[in-house]
Amino acid sequence: MSTFPDRGDKKQVEEGLGFTPKFDSDGLMPAMAIDATTKEPLMLAYMNAESLQLTLEKGEAVYWSRSRQEIWHKGATSGHVQKIQEIRTDCDQDAIILYVEQIGAGACHTGRSGCFYRKINAASGEMSFVEDGKAFDPESVYGKA
Amino acid sequence: MSTFPDRGDKKQVEEGLGFTPKFDSDGLMPAMAIDATTKEPLMLAYMNAESLQLTLEKGEAVYWSRSRQEIWHKGATSGHVQKIQEIRTDCDQDAIILYVEQIGAGACHTGRSGCFYRKINAASGEMSFVEDGKAFDPESVYGKA
Repeated sequence: MSTFPDRGDKKQVEEGLGFTPKFDSDGLMPAMAIDATTKEPLMLAYMNAESLQLTLEKGEAVYWSRSRQEIWHKGATSGHVQKIQEIRTDCDQDAIILYVEQIGAGACHTGRSGCFYRKINAASGEMSFVEDGKAFDPESVYGKA
Repeated sequence: MSTFPDRGDKKQVEEGLGFTPKFDSDGLMPAMAIDATTKEPLMLAYMNAESLQLTLEKGEAVYWSRSRQEIWHKGATSGHVQKIQEIRTDCDQDAIILYVEQIGAGACHTGRSGCFYRKINAASGEMSFVEDGKAFDPESVYGKA
């Protein structure tokens, strides 16, 4: 159940200053976490109304895990919490950007600083690593590879 | 119908160099466009397999419009195309980042350089403008406000 106000008309949504987030048919919206200092994108995950509310209350990123179907306070296991520096929404208020201070060595469960560590070669369809080395050992942090 | 290869196991998806994108139950994945020079996030939209393939072929951002339910070659109306500098995917290959050169004054249909022009005050739930002025006049570009 959303605790956010009802949305007004298109003009209010796009030009107003009331935060009236819109969730999709699954009750979710995408949230991109970006390192507030380096501007490097860290990860893209999803929030439902409850996790968005918790994010605002705690000042730390709280997502909705689609795979586990549960509230996911990022860093609860690894210690790699994301401290919110600034939250933005877009014109139609159905997407979120979190500018965060990433605590610990990285945001990605593979051990890298962020999840977007591969770029795509459009001609070949193959990828190459942008960030090859791992920032931390996922096995020691999460107890599994 | 996806023209991309079948996905392998988790290790191949996360550590491999074959691009095997995963679309959600609606056949879509989120794509964040970021200004390649300034690192400012421009917009978040969605791609289906066809629009992703077209993006790779054209070297310009092609999205799927959820509201119009059609392929959306960004800039076809406004001239504000997004020339791809680099495309990245994330660990589980279900999200895309486009680093782009934004042609024209801006990416947002409201007339701003990007869509994320408001930040949220967590305590009050109110927002304030990060980017107040408009970069272009949407009426003159799109023919409507």
